[in-house]
Amino acid sequence: MSHTGRGILTIVSGFAGSGKGTVMKKLVAEHDNYALSVSATSRAPRPGEEEGVSYFFRTREQFEEMIRQDALLEYAEYVGNYYGTPKDFVFSRMDEGRDVILEIELQGAMQIKKKYPDTVLIFLTPPSVDELYGRLKGRGTETDEVIAKRMKRASEEALSIKDYDYLVINDNIDDCTRKVHEIIQTAHHEVRHEAEFIESIREGLEKYSG
Amino acid sequence: MSHTGRGILTIVSGFAGSGKGTVMKKLVAEHDNYALSVSATSRAPRPGEEEGVSYFFRTREQFEEMIRQDALLEYAEYVGNYYGTPKDFVFSRMDEGRDVILEIELQGAMQIKKKYPDTVLIFLTPPSVDELYGRLKGRGTETDEVIAKRMKRASEEALSIKDYDYLVINDNIDDCTRKVHEIIQTAHHEVRHEAEFIESIREGLEKYSG
Repeated sequence: MSHTGRGILTIVSGFAGSGKGTVMKKLVAEHDNYALSVSATSRAPRPGEEEGVSYFFRTREQFEEMIRQDALLEYAEYVGNYYGTPKDFVFSRMDEGRDVILEIELQGAMQIKKKYPDTVLIFLTPPSVDELYGRLKGRGTETDEVIAKRMKRASEEALSIKDYDYLVINDNIDDCTRKVHEIIQTAHHEVRHEAEFIESIREGLEKYSG
Repeated sequence: MSHTGRGILTIVSGFAGSGKGTVMKKLVAEHDNYALSVSATSRAPRPGEEEGVSYFFRTREQFEEMIRQDALLEYAEYVGNYYGTPKDFVFSRMDEGRDVILEIELQGAMQIKKKYPDTVLIFLTPPSVDELYGRLKGRGTETDEVIAKRMKRASEEALSIKDYDYLVINDNIDDCTRKVHEIIQTAHHEVRHEAEFIESIREGLEKYSG
């Protein structure tokens, strides 16, 4: 790890087809300073899903208790199930000095940024709309109707890119991963993250010139 | 050059002994996207100094005319001579897509940030106060009185580090140069610098989703 002190919280969002899942996997594989957040959900586990790895599986009652106790960084309900980000998991890793990455959507990103303005928000996009369409189409797993719905949704999401801190164009997976890494590492040098060091230098200089 | 579009303006300041001069030279030598700003001054050229390279040499009258015409990004008077940063030189290079770096002090940095909030402000520091003192002492060219004065001044400067965007600790010249480079390249991905691309994506998506 190249930094001491508390880790930084980063949110990565992006259009369907932006490759954000691949970028996150590469980031974690290539650098030892990252931890991926694990979400909590009230939906039932699917075959092969592991508690604490895929999700923290909770009952609706347990999830609602977490909401009441303000134990979530953000949450949303989606087709009848809750999804959210437990604070504990994220903050304990940040306290260990790890940079935590959350892959969540727009609304969750905005909830967190409002409460924790130090969070770094990164939006990933394919290099062009044609490319975005091509990637969705190329998967070959979706009907035209689903693709049209995703394009419509991307069109709405595009209105909120300006509320993110950074936009990264994913035209090459290695370049894109490197850029995301540099953005997060750069954030460590923001003066708001160096307050302790600045204070120690100031005190030291006062003694010398005292 | 890894980016298209307009270049970014960066100001590098730092304590005496922070190594900022060396970092700037390495940046320019190692990457072709940077241009160093050249200051204007009303002081007389010294032997070996070249017009347009060391400085733009101007008479007091010419300099005051530049002030009246708002042709300077910032300026100050120092022991009877004017020093300032001509806008033309900086803006024309930014328009060519070059990232322009200014090595100036606190007051000038603040003048520019106020008028051009997109400017990236970086402050360089040695890793500790003892190291700072050692570097000033180690030069062997300054009297104890001058060193004491510089330490006193650093003590005042330290109060304003929080007004910069980034702090970089120079404990290794290669690492420090790489970090400054990454900070500037990261700034290209800030959403405020990608407004055109975001608009083009938004328009394209609107067409698709009809």
